[in-house]
Amino acid sequence: MWLRTKCDLSFEISVPTPFILMLRLRSGLQQWVASEKYRLEPNVPMFEFTDTYGNLCQRLVAPPGHFSIYTSADVRTDDFVDEAPGAPFVEVEYLPDAVLSYLLPSRFCESDRFGQMATDITAGYLMGYDQVKAIETWVRDNISYLPGTSDVPVSAIEINTRGSGVCRDLAHLGIALCRSLSIPARLVVGYLHDLQPMDLHAWFEAYVGGRWYTFDPTQSHIRGGYVVIGYGRDAADVAINNQFGPPVYPIYQNIQVQRIEEKDI
Amino acid sequence: MWLRTKCDLSFEISVPTPFILMLRLRSGLQQWVASEKYRLEPNVPMFEFTDTYGNLCQRLVAPPGHFSIYTSADVRTDDFVDEAPGAPFVEVEYLPDAVLSYLLPSRFCESDRFGQMATDITAGYLMGYDQVKAIETWVRDNISYLPGTSDVPVSAIEINTRGSGVCRDLAHLGIALCRSLSIPARLVVGYLHDLQPMDLHAWFEAYVGGRWYTFDPTQSHIRGGYVVIGYGRDAADVAINNQFGPPVYPIYQNIQVQRIEEKDI
Amino acid sequence: MWLRTKCDLSFEISVPTPFILMLRLRSGLQQWVASEKYRLEPNVPMFEFTDTYGNLCQRLVAPPGHFSIYTSADVRTDDFVDEAPGAPFVEVEYLPDAVLSYLLPSRFCESDRFGQMATDITAGYLMGYDQVKAIETWVRDNISYLPGTSDVPVSAIEINTRGSGVCRDLAHLGIALCRSLSIPARLVVGYLHDLQPMDLHAWFEAYVGGRWYTFDPTQSHIRGGYVVIGYGRDAADVAINNQFGPPVYPIYQNIQVQRIEEKDI
Amino acid sequence: MWLRTKCDLSFEISVPTPFILMLRLRSGLQQWVASEKYRLEPNVPMFEFTDTYGNLCQRLVAPPGHFSIYTSADVRTDDFVDEAPGAPFVEVEYLPDAVLSYLLPSRFCESDRFGQMATDITAGYLMGYDQVKAIETWVRDNISYLPGTSDVPVSAIEINTRGSGVCRDLAHLGIALCRSLSIPARLVVGYLHDLQPMDLHAWFEAYVGGRWYTFDPTQSHIRGGYVVIGYGRDAADVAINNQFGPPVYPIYQNIQVQRIEEKDI
Repeated sequence: MWLRTKCDLSFEISVPTPFILMLRLRSGLQQWVASEKYRLEPNVPMFEFTDTYGNLCQRLVAPPGHFSIYTSADVRTDDFVDEAPGAPFVEVEYLPDAVLSYLLPSRFCESDRFGQMATDITAGYLMGYDQVKAIETWVRDNISYLPGTSDVPVSAIEINTRGSGVCRDLAHLGIALCRSLSIPARLVVGYLHDLQPMDLHAWFEAYVGGRWYTFDPTQSHIRGGYVVIGYGRDAADVAINNQFGPPVYPIYQNIQVQRIEEKDI
Repeated sequence: MWLRTKCDLSFEISVPTPFILMLRLRSGLQQWVASEKYRLEPNVPMFEFTDTYGNLCQRLVAPPGHFSIYTSADVRTDDFVDEAPGAPFVEVEYLPDAVLSYLLPSRFCESDRFGQMATDITAGYLMGYDQVKAIETWVRDNISYLPGTSDVPVSAIEINTRGSGVCRDLAHLGIALCRSLSIPARLVVGYLHDLQPMDLHAWFEAYVGGRWYTFDPTQSHIRGGYVVIGYGRDAADVAINNQFGPPVYPIYQNIQVQRIEEKDI
Repeated sequence: MWLRTKCDLSFEISVPTPFILMLRLRSGLQQWVASEKYRLEPNVPMFEFTDTYGNLCQRLVAPPGHFSIYTSADVRTDDFVDEAPGAPFVEVEYLPDAVLSYLLPSRFCESDRFGQMATDITAGYLMGYDQVKAIETWVRDNISYLPGTSDVPVSAIEINTRGSGVCRDLAHLGIALCRSLSIPARLVVGYLHDLQPMDLHAWFEAYVGGRWYTFDPTQSHIRGGYVVIGYGRDAADVAINNQFGPPVYPIYQNIQVQRIEEKDI
Repeated sequence: MWLRTKCDLSFEISVPTPFILMLRLRSGLQQWVASEKYRLEPNVPMFEFTDTYGNLCQRLVAPPGHFSIYTSADVRTDDFVDEAPGAPFVEVEYLPDAVLSYLLPSRFCESDRFGQMATDITAGYLMGYDQVKAIETWVRDNISYLPGTSDVPVSAIEINTRGSGVCRDLAHLGIALCRSLSIPARLVVGYLHDLQPMDLHAWFEAYVGGRWYTFDPTQSHIRGGYVVIGYGRDAADVAINNQFGPPVYPIYQNIQVQRIEEKDI
């Protein structure tokens, strides 16, 4: 399917504020970016680099006053997300070098503390994809998904105690549980068609059967329509907008994901 | 200034043909990509990766039949290209690690054979920027620029013998001469506003005074309006379209660079 | 000075256990590895890769039974550690791309929670090196250094509450405080000559004045004799031995750092 | 088998001369470095970095006067080199991203000029390993191996015309022929046990059947005893000692490869 995504952000800036943005999409395994717009107002200089996760990052200093970012993209994405019941666990010694860092605990995914809980949740399941599916189901059934309540990111331990969270929080818990079983897992930030209510979204991927697969504990079932913005170990790595100095929050944020026809691109 | 660049390519494909394309622009030091389009017909799956030079590369297999690529971008680029007469030579021991590979000879820039010639051309010039300027001037004055005659890429040695070449060839000779003096130099492929006749363009950059500077032996003087597509050691690394198997040439190629107003983006 | 370092580890393995080791030293800014030994018993196959922090990592699967690792190195290290009172804070927009990830919170350094505390500790100090020195001093004066009590790694928040910790813990707190002020900071694991009692050691580096500087809240003053094994965001990234599956602890560990003469290498 | 390798180089330096050395071995797929020595006289500061091919490179400035480098290593290497008759050609679209650059022509391997010749040599052979074996045999049978005649590196085209060369030259021709068939190929520099006469050695690897395999047109058959120092596209990338400024040649060079027992390490 073809989707038109849009993310507009406006800020009221008091002092010159360095930003690192991650708002340029990449074409990849299951998405092709046919058209993209990325505008700033005012149009300050901006530099781009690729981080260690392969994300395109944009650096700039926002000047005092009103500062806006307008991005949109026309993306072809798969109608169905690949699923692979039975896909086997990959022994650590056979994991590609580049995947190993996704086994380590990270700021919001304290996988070093979830070994017993993950073992309990996945008891009786085939090692690999089926374990991750059991984790996704457990999180869906046990942690309430409360969209729009996000403020400060909290960690998997805190979410597990609290029993509820935003999409990012549920993904963090899923990731921590996977890693504690030596299954590489990473956070994905992006868009999802028909998300209710519409917002930026976060889910996770796990590496089983020799590749990454998509999991999303906030949705009742996996369907097509995911558009990836960025990957990372957790939300610390994949901030759509990371700003330094006195905190600055968007005064306006407009996220849209709209189905389009190929002829409209 | 704001420029709208366009590169359309069409091929007649006889057998399934793997391509590596380098047609997605990056925002960087002197350019900001505000809008971009990238379409394929037919719309085959395409994967993207970043090569060791930081270029975005797209991989695909073109199916038999008519195959077209349409790309365009709206780019803000500097009105003037930075120049720095007197900028000093950087001793090899102070070059950043990542710049060292641009000292080595490469397929089309046999810098290991140009030491004496480069020494002669730059005799009496300050080490650094002024040496490169002398090289650029020498190439401009001694190698005839014959746009549109390109077929198979030839190397700096061959161009120096032949006495004429396309933009890429003149750049290769400039690069070989710089490297033979231990000045890092790299090929740049992209667009140039008001290029006569309009086509894809190639020029080179040299690393002096702690950064890369732009040089172009095909133009009578350096002016603004350059848009970078990719960087590499030479044309072997920066092929806009690299295809494998039986050779395939574009049956149609349309390159445009048009000045636009910011409001038209 | 020339130092001979030694790290021997023995394990009793019950099931085949994948390890990632980080026990091969790198030559670098302040150390030169003139000689190195690295032996395994039994001598299982081992593969080496470079992680995203530049560390050399060794992968292997330890077979059931007694498994030992013997490493030693003869290293020339600076007699004095560079200090730079007054070295300025580097604004985020001028940090090299590769340094940016050391600003982010990580598993054991929840810098997103230390803003107020860091501001209080560094009130009145020049921005940059002097702030980091104030943080190092504060940690030294307020967190008791209890060598040899290490078990499970705990995070900066937990250490701050607990008021005591091993070298790694004090470093984590220093790092979290630096990052909360937008000063890049990273964990260093290695050896220190004359450390009392002798053990593997951990300290931290902060990026001010355009380079990394060494800080160590466990020692009364910075002196020479540091030998770096690896760098990372925190202890999750720089585990000397990271093993997967059922936990395995060394049944024997022998760490030595001995001053030698150049002629003994 | 266990081998003790040794490479000692001495230079008479007239002006301070920057060097990039590639003399630190890596443990990897078929070799394990158990012990290593690396000494300089005089002991100037030296910095190490990893290049884009994964080689460890050492940077230094040699001071005027006598300058010596002493390196040795105890390495376990496979008794047999893996061979895989019938291993299939990997279609370009299935090659890993990181392997793609080994398809491109390079300074000494002008693969863009060898298409017809490679097709003729490999006519009737299975695509993949058997083609590379045919190329190796053709080079062995048609280009005379003249060890010790090396001076300035020459390219595959020149070697093919000349009909003779050193190990590096034969490897370059083999590489150029492979790449012209879209088979990735790279130069390897290292040691070979029982090489006659003993010297540093060069051979090549080709990527078929999903991995790199070893080929060596200078030897009558592939046997064990290879120790890798470095990899690259050709000799421009893998110079054991690369020096800048006025040329400097070793006044003394001592290469040894000696079989040892494990107990002697």
